[in-house]
Amino acid sequence: MTRRADVHRIAMQSPDDVSGIRLLIEQARLDPCTVVAVLGKTEGNGCVNDFTRGYATQSLRHLFSHWLSEDQLDKVPFVMSGGTEGGLSPHWIVITVKKNEEPPQNSATVAQALAVGSAVTRDLLPSELGRCVQADIVKQGVLKAMHQANIQSPDDVHLVQVKCPLLTSGRIEQVGGDVATTDTLKSMSLSRAASALGVGMALGEVARVDDVRIGTDLSLWSGRASCSAGIELMGCEIVVLGQSISWSGPLRVAHAVMQDTIDASTLMDLIARTSGERYASAHGSHIVATLAKAEASSTGHIRGSRHTMLNDSDIAATRHVRSFVGGLLAGLVGNTEIFVSGGAEHQGPDGGGPVAIIYSTDSL
Amino acid sequence: MTRRADVHRIAMQSPDDVSGIRLLIEQARLDPCTVVAVLGKTEGNGCVNDFTRGYATQSLRHLFSHWLSEDQLDKVPFVMSGGTEGGLSPHWIVITVKKNEEPPQNSATVAQALAVGSAVTRDLLPSELGRCVQADIVKQGVLKAMHQANIQSPDDVHLVQVKCPLLTSGRIEQVGGDVATTDTLKSMSLSRAASALGVGMALGEVARVDDVRIGTDLSLWSGRASCSAGIELMGCEIVVLGQSISWSGPLRVAHAVMQDTIDASTLMDLIARTSGERYASAHGSHIVATLAKAEASSTGHIRGSRHTMLNDSDIAATRHVRSFVGGLLAGLVGNTEIFVSGGAEHQGPDGGGPVAIIYSTDSL
Amino acid sequence: MTRRADVHRIAMQSPDDVSGIRLLIEQARLDPCTVVAVLGKTEGNGCVNDFTRGYATQSLRHLFSHWLSEDQLDKVPFVMSGGTEGGLSPHWIVITVKKNEEPPQNSATVAQALAVGSAVTRDLLPSELGRCVQADIVKQGVLKAMHQANIQSPDDVHLVQVKCPLLTSGRIEQVGGDVATTDTLKSMSLSRAASALGVGMALGEVARVDDVRIGTDLSLWSGRASCSAGIELMGCEIVVLGQSISWSGPLRVAHAVMQDTIDASTLMDLIARTSGERYASAHGSHIVATLAKAEASSTGHIRGSRHTMLNDSDIAATRHVRSFVGGLLAGLVGNTEIFVSGGAEHQGPDGGGPVAIIYSTDSL
Amino acid sequence: MTRRADVHRIAMQSPDDVSGIRLLIEQARLDPCTVVAVLGKTEGNGCVNDFTRGYATQSLRHLFSHWLSEDQLDKVPFVMSGGTEGGLSPHWIVITVKKNEEPPQNSATVAQALAVGSAVTRDLLPSELGRCVQADIVKQGVLKAMHQANIQSPDDVHLVQVKCPLLTSGRIEQVGGDVATTDTLKSMSLSRAASALGVGMALGEVARVDDVRIGTDLSLWSGRASCSAGIELMGCEIVVLGQSISWSGPLRVAHAVMQDTIDASTLMDLIARTSGERYASAHGSHIVATLAKAEASSTGHIRGSRHTMLNDSDIAATRHVRSFVGGLLAGLVGNTEIFVSGGAEHQGPDGGGPVAIIYSTDSL
Repeated sequence: MTRRADVHRIAMQSPDDVSGIRLLIEQARLDPCTVVAVLGKTEGNGCVNDFTRGYATQSLRHLFSHWLSEDQLDKVPFVMSGGTEGGLSPHWIVITVKKNEEPPQNSATVAQALAVGSAVTRDLLPSELGRCVQADIVKQGVLKAMHQANIQSPDDVHLVQVKCPLLTSGRIEQVGGDVATTDTLKSMSLSRAASALGVGMALGEVARVDDVRIGTDLSLWSGRASCSAGIELMGCEIVVLGQSISWSGPLRVAHAVMQDTIDASTLMDLIARTSGERYASAHGSHIVATLAKAEASSTGHIRGSRHTMLNDSDIAATRHVRSFVGGLLAGLVGNTEIFVSGGAEHQGPDGGGPVAIIYSTDSL
Repeated sequence: MTRRADVHRIAMQSPDDVSGIRLLIEQARLDPCTVVAVLGKTEGNGCVNDFTRGYATQSLRHLFSHWLSEDQLDKVPFVMSGGTEGGLSPHWIVITVKKNEEPPQNSATVAQALAVGSAVTRDLLPSELGRCVQADIVKQGVLKAMHQANIQSPDDVHLVQVKCPLLTSGRIEQVGGDVATTDTLKSMSLSRAASALGVGMALGEVARVDDVRIGTDLSLWSGRASCSAGIELMGCEIVVLGQSISWSGPLRVAHAVMQDTIDASTLMDLIARTSGERYASAHGSHIVATLAKAEASSTGHIRGSRHTMLNDSDIAATRHVRSFVGGLLAGLVGNTEIFVSGGAEHQGPDGGGPVAIIYSTDSL
Repeated sequence: MTRRADVHRIAMQSPDDVSGIRLLIEQARLDPCTVVAVLGKTEGNGCVNDFTRGYATQSLRHLFSHWLSEDQLDKVPFVMSGGTEGGLSPHWIVITVKKNEEPPQNSATVAQALAVGSAVTRDLLPSELGRCVQADIVKQGVLKAMHQANIQSPDDVHLVQVKCPLLTSGRIEQVGGDVATTDTLKSMSLSRAASALGVGMALGEVARVDDVRIGTDLSLWSGRASCSAGIELMGCEIVVLGQSISWSGPLRVAHAVMQDTIDASTLMDLIARTSGERYASAHGSHIVATLAKAEASSTGHIRGSRHTMLNDSDIAATRHVRSFVGGLLAGLVGNTEIFVSGGAEHQGPDGGGPVAIIYSTDSL
Repeated sequence: MTRRADVHRIAMQSPDDVSGIRLLIEQARLDPCTVVAVLGKTEGNGCVNDFTRGYATQSLRHLFSHWLSEDQLDKVPFVMSGGTEGGLSPHWIVITVKKNEEPPQNSATVAQALAVGSAVTRDLLPSELGRCVQADIVKQGVLKAMHQANIQSPDDVHLVQVKCPLLTSGRIEQVGGDVATTDTLKSMSLSRAASALGVGMALGEVARVDDVRIGTDLSLWSGRASCSAGIELMGCEIVVLGQSISWSGPLRVAHAVMQDTIDASTLMDLIARTSGERYASAHGSHIVATLAKAEASSTGHIRGSRHTMLNDSDIAATRHVRSFVGGLLAGLVGNTEIFVSGGAEHQGPDGGGPVAIIYSTDSL
């Protein structure tokens, strides 16, 4: 007997619009008791004062409270990422897991299928955020989630989604200013950085780190970490997406690492691995979800040409880059419901970032 | 004897950085007396209070005043477009024309080459702006510029860049309030709209229009118009880019019309027409300039998925869409010096827009 | 026997922070069953995509649902106004009403005390928004609320707070485009305008209006209307603040109309009416709540000097002006918990706006 | 024989609008050869990518080049400060100095009059910015300017305006990353901080500093420093405003230090010192120029109430605070042409800032 993961991508009309999820539940196409994680791409600024994430989470908890207890709710990662700049479209990605009583579709071969594990860490102290303690805590969480999903090798992990906290003036005061940074926007960056290094340590991509290299030594990176920071939590919520022969069903996951924000070639190769075709405009239906990280290169250049993202005091660089990379992803994948999140510190090389595609072998 | 157009794409470190142009002049690679138009993509917000356009124009005039008289300067269209959102890179596009004494490179075939014509119309009355009169005046200007460039057929026109006026409180007063709109921001949109329909009429894409359809009947459009409005003129400055056998040299121009903001397939086909390959990452050097229009669809949707651009009160929709479409263009063209401009009324279908690529047959 | 209104001003740490209200309830200092209205100044952009208002409302409803039924909740106006630009501080203003069994404090005189009435209108159709229908509906609501509060004369009304809806792309589509405007930000302005004229009609300040004068004929205005628009409702929520001898307790309300955004003199006179002193820095404790409207003058000038608010495409004019007027109010009132809301169409003269102060006679 | 300083405050319709200055010159009311400094409040964002400052400077230089040589121009500080948030009005402040042949107006008393001195330092290396080297260089510049103006005592200095450089990605690269910060927005803050400490050292308000206290030890501050950072220079431009018996004419200058952003009481006392009245709405004509610094308190609170400026990722805190303090200043001074500049690191206490008023004894 295996487990089977299903992934539902559902449009969201506003951060509190859970009607699409409710409809699937009412139609018995989604069992709320089997939900292991919900990702949401919400339409806020994705920065410090983005309350659409908390609003979406509150709305989700209210919905699911009809079926799950408070304790059960606390164990489901709700990973909201703000920012649907450009033509990106707000949406939910609901992941369910159930036991699969049916034999594998093709009993002759033992194929790997999408495997999902999750973990929620303890709350961090504001003074731990963006430092080694956070990286270690995330590392332990990733290993726990892999074990839970029976993913044997780090090579079978294709994306680790981490939602981690940020600092506010209030939280900084709470620990008497003993924090990695007093700049609240910067704290989002350091929190993502520490989480990414934790993922990299768990997957063997990064060796032990020290505080000073977090957010600064860009030669250290994970090709499978996707971290976002939010005001609404103080712990880290971890979802591991991989493949395992202990799982069955039609879904698969693949990933690649974009080398810069305009790396169409890597994206095309990744899409080709899911379907044989190098872009999905006409064949997009097999792609169930696209998850990516993007960031403005710290050099201020893309292939030798200057970009203006880091010098723009009107629009945060993360907002610029989500739209920019989102345009390329949406064009090649053929739809705008892309979970692209900004700020890819230690998540892929400087100016680049990991991309993962969950796809279905049924619709090919 | 033929004419030959050359196109120089030059990086800009800030709106007043004309050092790249000056260097080419000093190296005798660019003769300032042969300049027929300068396009600039500057790093402002591209909206009402974008002073980077005026700053760039002032800097250009100051530079060229060493070689050209005030009168001569007034005849050169300086078309500045603000907004390098996402990873787009500020740059100048300087177009020169000279007589080509040499025989065509391949005398066996009579090939078309890039042909450039320009016209400056009479000043509009404020009451004419955004109305049929403007469309008619632009139509005549386009035909004159085509004639000047000896472009025989409308089919040989690939892009018409128009810079047109807008209304101010003073100009509205001047005609006693008899204007298409008293909203000065809206007047920019109507002026672009009327200009685009004028281009469409000149090229046989649009039949005769009436005032009420300007800016409203989105079924009318030109696939080759690119219009922007500015406060610094009351006439229309027109640059026609096409092909003609009366011109020689290695440059060519091709265009296509994106049907929506993620229309990768149309872009790939266009790129293939310039080089045989469907994307240019590895072969980008033959692409000399990429010029495009982009806009947020008025339906609020892209291929059925909601976008948030029209409901965003923090970032103007034109800024969102330049970044989003810019990301796709840059990915496929392989560099970020893309002249993408927002606000595409009657310039391509609703939510889409024209794209033109100037390329060199030398570097293939 | 009289009624007595109490007003609690409570700090808010984030849009979902109702802990301050909960604490007062737990301490038996606030009876949730006596709440007649809650105003909230939340930290969003105060424009179309400000979800902090809905988030705050959802959080309030969740809190009060422990004591009130859904039906009862629907009858309590929750008037959230987004935007705490500058040093303004997010806060709740909770208004309760109870029967006052005790005799008036000074039985020798029959003094007027703060009187509060409220009404919630039916939902508007998107096609009714910003048109006469809305003004009429608001007028009826105001009269109903005055009657409920036993406020005899319109002269005894000092502020009418209205929360009204706005248009989104979706709502415009819903009525096939038959709307007063298709510009979503503009719809907020027209909705506030129609509501203000409805208030003016109810208070005898404005005669009957027609669609075309809504938002355009700035000679029509109410000196006591305060209207804000939000995405989270389709009806209008009305709270009337006045004085009546049917009410008792220490609270009073006074108002004045600022003639422009820097009208310190009017403000000082108003403050003097509440305490004898012309500014409240040292005596601020008697001021319980300050409610004001502010707007950028449509002339583009303040006392002859140009302002840049209407030409700024980075920051909405309503955001600019909330901060600017908020600074003057906060300085003279001596604290930053000011309920100042932007966009004062027909609410005071062009570029000015009403200000109301609720104060206590106890603390003087 | 004495010197006499005159101050002209002139409206600016756009950053390149020098027509008001030109008119005064044509009318022989302003001699361009006597200009010692020009301050400009321009309508950009006042942050890193504010090109209105450079545009205004280029326009000024072009204007004055009719009378002054390049060398002479380089010696005149052009101090542009971006940001006219709220109702603030863009304007020039042109300061001229001439020899006064006439005897003092009242020969019986030897009164102090407005005295002006200026200095331009050498260009800084990017690695010196925000560090002690910058503070020392500014200190020397202030002493030189005081000496030039024959201001004997530091007590007679009422404002020192410093324009200093900032870091960009390019400048950071230029010194191989050896900079005080790699965050370009943060570099503006550190540059202002170092300059302010330099002023404080020159005026005896601050003892010797070290790198680590720059921008962090907020107990160190000058009550007379006003520093702003701009992209268009690498040196520091210094203008000292004080009083001296070596100077004559009707102009005087006074200053005070606001303790927080809503410190109306201090402002009223300062205004009273210039005219006897505590606010200037009706008597504003004697006030020639108002110059102030403002900043968001690092505690996140104003008189115990939370502000949201430091957590806002859409609008920079400096923009918020200019509008907020500008509203209070404009209300009390009675006009909106206020030179208020954001970011008051070490310029007044945390969250407060210096204010100086230049006024005329003629118009009283």
